[in-house]
Amino acid sequence: MLSVIAIQDDIAAGRSTPAAEIARSLDRIAELDAAIGAFETLADRDTAIAAAGSASGPLAGVSVGIKDIFDTADLPTTYGTPLYEGYRPRTDAAVVSMIRQAGASIVGKTVTTEFAFLNPSRTRNPLDPAHTPGGSSSGSAAAVAAGMVAAATGTQTGGSVIRPAAYCGVSGYKPSFRLVPAVGAKAFSWSLDTVGFFAASAADVARFASCVTRRPLDVEEPASPLRIGLYKSRIWNEANADMHLALARTAQIATDAGAEFVEIDEPDTLAAGRDCHSTIQNYEVGLAMADDFLRFGDRMSKILRETIASGRAIPPADYDKARATARRARKAATALFQAVDVVLTPSATGAAPAGLASTGSPVFNKVWTLTGNPCVNVTGLSNSAGMPIGVQVVARFGADRTALSAAHWLERVIREA
Amino acid sequence: MLSVIAIQDDIAAGRSTPAAEIARSLDRIAELDAAIGAFETLADRDTAIAAAGSASGPLAGVSVGIKDIFDTADLPTTYGTPLYEGYRPRTDAAVVSMIRQAGASIVGKTVTTEFAFLNPSRTRNPLDPAHTPGGSSSGSAAAVAAGMVAAATGTQTGGSVIRPAAYCGVSGYKPSFRLVPAVGAKAFSWSLDTVGFFAASAADVARFASCVTRRPLDVEEPASPLRIGLYKSRIWNEANADMHLALARTAQIATDAGAEFVEIDEPDTLAAGRDCHSTIQNYEVGLAMADDFLRFGDRMSKILRETIASGRAIPPADYDKARATARRARKAATALFQAVDVVLTPSATGAAPAGLASTGSPVFNKVWTLTGNPCVNVTGLSNSAGMPIGVQVVARFGADRTALSAAHWLERVIREA
Repeated sequence: MLSVIAIQDDIAAGRSTPAAEIARSLDRIAELDAAIGAFETLADRDTAIAAAGSASGPLAGVSVGIKDIFDTADLPTTYGTPLYEGYRPRTDAAVVSMIRQAGASIVGKTVTTEFAFLNPSRTRNPLDPAHTPGGSSSGSAAAVAAGMVAAATGTQTGGSVIRPAAYCGVSGYKPSFRLVPAVGAKAFSWSLDTVGFFAASAADVARFASCVTRRPLDVEEPASPLRIGLYKSRIWNEANADMHLALARTAQIATDAGAEFVEIDEPDTLAAGRDCHSTIQNYEVGLAMADDFLRFGDRMSKILRETIASGRAIPPADYDKARATARRARKAATALFQAVDVVLTPSATGAAPAGLASTGSPVFNKVWTLTGNPCVNVTGLSNSAGMPIGVQVVARFGADRTALSAAHWLERVIREA
Repeated sequence: MLSVIAIQDDIAAGRSTPAAEIARSLDRIAELDAAIGAFETLADRDTAIAAAGSASGPLAGVSVGIKDIFDTADLPTTYGTPLYEGYRPRTDAAVVSMIRQAGASIVGKTVTTEFAFLNPSRTRNPLDPAHTPGGSSSGSAAAVAAGMVAAATGTQTGGSVIRPAAYCGVSGYKPSFRLVPAVGAKAFSWSLDTVGFFAASAADVARFASCVTRRPLDVEEPASPLRIGLYKSRIWNEANADMHLALARTAQIATDAGAEFVEIDEPDTLAAGRDCHSTIQNYEVGLAMADDFLRFGDRMSKILRETIASGRAIPPADYDKARATARRARKAATALFQAVDVVLTPSATGAAPAGLASTGSPVFNKVWTLTGNPCVNVTGLSNSAGMPIGVQVVARFGADRTALSAAHWLERVIREA
């Protein structure tokens, strides 16, 4: 994989140049993407390399894939559906502009599922093309995993950043809600849509996010032993044997390396939060995409059309009740972090499922999207078939650096074990 | 003015038809708008009247102006700037779709100031064309005031619904934050941008909002005497003599009519909330409109360009501090309503200022936009020159019906006094 930090170091040391890095990214895409299908559109090669040659900023030479749910003025924006073919927004989404201003090169738009929902895309998992890369940020996770780009953007409304990161064995970071603006991403659910990032490792994604947001997010060593809570949620049994082994192994390695490990039972209010996620998501998409539904509904996938239709049937009072439940869940999530620095939970039910008919289940992600806590997929574990198994760390709202640093620490001790 | 409720009643009683109502609206626009300049673009007359003839839903026959900051697929969308000339979004904004689904007819896009900020538009105040109608929802307030449409949409980031409503003598309703989705409105500040409505009276705007949102918002008589808090904010002296007279008169009339009136001093946390509004607004527009700024900044008004530039210079830590202040202000705003049903404050510093060089001051609106409380401009008071003086009622977050009902009650006792 391409490392954001290694690229920065190589350029700083004179071992590489921004133009050479962008050429390398585009070469890899040319070589690999026919088999993977991570890209929807590519930037013009000569223009991109020339622009990188004069780029300034901390991310000069860093190649980035933009999930095609974000508006771009210079590249087509399809939202993963033929309904938006030929659509050209007048300006870039906020995060796209932030990435450009940091000096990075946008080398293409990555494949998203239809409107970033559940209908699968054509993208294959680079670690085994017979498996899904996850979704909805399918192309972004696959592009980083295949070493085609150093970083990529995603969005998560259910589990669309953490899950594909886990399936593809890359670092996925879902920041605290609204740390990164969602302006210019096609809206699905305004209470849930969260912009996130992918890179090779926790340290890389932290560096990337730090440069993009101009916030101090770089990973740091824990000042005292990490206090980790193993989060035994009500859906614990939806994780498969691979995942249970991975969690046990992570707990063992972390304990051996000096972390304090406790088990945490899921508070009722957080379980209720998970249960109300779909009411909030579906009610909001029923309004946010009402006009898409009325104009183009007959050309949407069945799962999307039925989800919007179901959302349109939810009474406002039920939505209000769900929002009240969500507020209580957010308070309960904050209370979790009185006793621990981070909680550890599955990133998904297991490794990437075989086949491309489903992008897998977001069941372990939804509650943290609802509460808005920062989450990072930890890389380095795999099952007996060699497919990655991702576990996620979750930190207190606003403690993004804690989440990133804990993921980095875990990645190191797992690697060294 | 055209009344939403009267139109519904006339159609229900067979005294009018939806097509006749829409024809009447378009006739008035043809007659009056050359002198007022409330409309940016108009729907095709024959098409609109024919469509109204087959409209169904509770708002059939209700003519609506859509602030040109909302996306519309069938009418051009300019965001009040030549920079977006010829821009055609693929779908309608969420609230536009909600209005259409309720059966109303969108007769045109109303003039907004540039990107709904402070640079004045060409729209004149229908009550005196030498005065500003306020902004940024200039055309919407003026169109309702002139009787050209029965209802109109607005957005408020500072004071862009309540202030023009006050200056034009119409009912303006800023709902609780996110009660009405902002999806498809050009984003300025995602923590503040709030969709609102204009109509002739509190009862009319409540009926309109009720039909659009499918929520029970119709005004109702208070079950017990209204408890009103006169909100003596730190900026009390920024209101002029006309406004102080109007507030005193409202207090007298309401007390005579049986309301309980108390004076409330502004809590420190709410004053601090007002002070942090511009940090939040400017930081967020610095990100939300970064690409507009970088592409088109040299063709923006000076005030907008400088505001975005200042926002881009705000350190994230200052923004985070402002957000923490805002959270405390929201809690303090909720606590206000333990002792009173609504608070009463100026809608603006006084009547509409003379001239079109400024849209007036949002100083009395900003804190309630920040806290997200529902606000309604109360009509019926005027100064010695006959220009409207608006006072606003503010209710607990989520108690929109209380705000609308209190405004309705005040409008009645003012009319009867």
